[in-house]
Amino acid sequence: VSSTSSVTPQDLADALSALRERPPLVQCLTNIVAAGWTANVLLAVGAAPAMVDNPREAREFAGIAGGVLVNLGTPYDDTARAMHFAITGASRSGTPWVLDPVAVGALGWRTSVAHRLLHEARPTIIRGNASEILALAGGEGGRGVESVDSPEATIAVAKELAKQQKSVVAVSGPTDHITDGNSVARLSNGHPWLTQVTGVGCALGALMAAFAAVVPDAVVAAAAATATLTVAADSAAKETRGPGGFAVALLDELSLLQPAELAERVRIS
Amino acid sequence: VSSTSSVTPQDLADALSALRERPPLVQCLTNIVAAGWTANVLLAVGAAPAMVDNPREAREFAGIAGGVLVNLGTPYDDTARAMHFAITGASRSGTPWVLDPVAVGALGWRTSVAHRLLHEARPTIIRGNASEILALAGGEGGRGVESVDSPEATIAVAKELAKQQKSVVAVSGPTDHITDGNSVARLSNGHPWLTQVTGVGCALGALMAAFAAVVPDAVVAAAAATATLTVAADSAAKETRGPGGFAVALLDELSLLQPAELAERVRIS
Amino acid sequence: VSSTSSVTPQDLADALSALRERPPLVQCLTNIVAAGWTANVLLAVGAAPAMVDNPREAREFAGIAGGVLVNLGTPYDDTARAMHFAITGASRSGTPWVLDPVAVGALGWRTSVAHRLLHEARPTIIRGNASEILALAGGEGGRGVESVDSPEATIAVAKELAKQQKSVVAVSGPTDHITDGNSVARLSNGHPWLTQVTGVGCALGALMAAFAAVVPDAVVAAAAATATLTVAADSAAKETRGPGGFAVALLDELSLLQPAELAERVRIS
Repeated sequence: VSSTSSVTPQDLADALSALRERPPLVQCLTNIVAAGWTANVLLAVGAAPAMVDNPREAREFAGIAGGVLVNLGTPYDDTARAMHFAITGASRSGTPWVLDPVAVGALGWRTSVAHRLLHEARPTIIRGNASEILALAGGEGGRGVESVDSPEATIAVAKELAKQQKSVVAVSGPTDHITDGNSVARLSNGHPWLTQVTGVGCALGALMAAFAAVVPDAVVAAAAATATLTVAADSAAKETRGPGGFAVALLDELSLLQPAELAERVRIS
Repeated sequence: VSSTSSVTPQDLADALSALRERPPLVQCLTNIVAAGWTANVLLAVGAAPAMVDNPREAREFAGIAGGVLVNLGTPYDDTARAMHFAITGASRSGTPWVLDPVAVGALGWRTSVAHRLLHEARPTIIRGNASEILALAGGEGGRGVESVDSPEATIAVAKELAKQQKSVVAVSGPTDHITDGNSVARLSNGHPWLTQVTGVGCALGALMAAFAAVVPDAVVAAAAATATLTVAADSAAKETRGPGGFAVALLDELSLLQPAELAERVRIS
Repeated sequence: VSSTSSVTPQDLADALSALRERPPLVQCLTNIVAAGWTANVLLAVGAAPAMVDNPREAREFAGIAGGVLVNLGTPYDDTARAMHFAITGASRSGTPWVLDPVAVGALGWRTSVAHRLLHEARPTIIRGNASEILALAGGEGGRGVESVDSPEATIAVAKELAKQQKSVVAVSGPTDHITDGNSVARLSNGHPWLTQVTGVGCALGALMAAFAAVVPDAVVAAAAATATLTVAADSAAKETRGPGGFAVALLDELSLLQPAELAERVRIS
């Protein structure tokens, strides 16, 4: 049985206030599909994106950035090397970084890249959907994806991965779960259209890097990012009739969302 | 004289129903300009995009995907090699694939890449505008672009290319023409704003790969993709006042469009 | 003291008319974040974008294009080589080109790339924010960023850079400044949301390349691009409530903006 997280709605509101007061510089090494959208999500919420993803500058910039996102959506030899350099730079300077293992498990090369990154440095937060988290844990711990078939079992694997890596693990889904290996925070805002807009998960990883830059507790950072995105999504879905208008309204709502409203509307346990 | 295609509005409606019932996984090797937009178009219509475009994973994934798009919009050495691997994988596993020869004819390197791909494997569908199709055929068949100057002449070249390659050839324009080398289907929905939004043609190629994954007849697949996009565009144009709002409404209309409405509103002969 | 520019509102209206009458082909070597957005901005205003950014085709295409944009947002070894080839091709054929030194000064490698490009060929226009322009000038002229701390001092550096490079220099900000080294044009339309949409500055550089393709005076070209974007932004901001809707409306307004309205609403001195 997982103990309930002690993260409060007020913690999330305080995190959003901190982000707005001290806009963090977020280095994103992300994919060609979601790069523009991710930058717009970061700008809308109040952060400053910088997509420095080449091997010649990635390490240098990770020392300047407040937070770093490493997203495996469309890796190439060049950018995979940049990811290695970025996390080396982040580790040296104590910059928090987020690993988003997109499609790990389904594809061989990026799975090995992800495992190599995990061995080189400890991510502050690992964020993925259930199958990605299971695959990442399976490769590390010898547990196959097939052996896990329920939400509760997924959470158990996520907790184990968090303990092994000394990272916070965030599993996205209809209910989002965030764990440090001990307690589990559950968030249940959001709308199905979030899965019909490309790069929402990628942008969530970037938001986690942004919040990790301004709050010391990585569980709070991951939860604040999740809450901010999904509470804004609740509003955006009410005003629109399909995924096109929804994505546009989501940016508007992210920029309009106030900390007090976030605390009031978030569903966290 | 071209014989009229036997594709019926009901065939197109059935194709859209099939796509919604069994959402296909579509591997896109596409350009940096249209990647995000293409993924959003695929998601809106109900398909599952996966932009796996690196040489280390492209072949492996083409065996998993339901359909593959190879788009030459912004090729690099790395992604051009990935295209080679993707079509090798697609051929081996019988996965349908679409070639979109963006700017072939106007630029030397990508023209040679396109011809090499054509020699390596037979695309299920080749999709382009008139000048691209003419250039592709010219390089293969020795017929220069200059010798062709009317829509009917373009269609004749497209039919020849279709016969040579044993592919379906789709020529986009105010009227869209689709041919298997024998009959020609003509579709005439759509709006001029489609040419003022970047990547609409690229997204159409991706939609063809999505439909080819769920219906066996490639002419029906190409026609269903064209009809779905252009009928949705008719609705989107009515609600908006410029290309920005139009692109957003197009995603909404793609997600709202029902098979019966598609059959009713498509103009096909 | 800087002399006031002699650019008139009517010059800007004439430039927009020229662009609409002879839509220029604009080659963009730009970043993965803003590529799609930049293409949509060019299409909305009436230009024809072509993102030819690989080293095998960049030189060839610069001879065909009406204008070229070189933007250092996300450079890689491959695309940095393409930039070298593109400006070589542009110089040979007399094609105007724009340098946008994104994040130069903050990052070492791209700063050396920018200086190398400046040594190889004379850009028609250099466009950046104050810190980028100061960094670019500092590396060339031995003047450090630290020594400059006021808008007027920035303009003095921009004028010096313009003289050294024989280029027009455009400095973006709440007020935009454009100088050929002698006179300075000041434009003051626009809205803070322009800084909350990713790639607006990148798109402005592309618009400058588009206008430089149709008007011979580079100060007029830079001013027309700035005025077109910021006057459209004034309208877009009035209709919307956040950066998401604003970006969409900006595309609509760019496509609807007429030359006479531009001349009437621009604030230039």
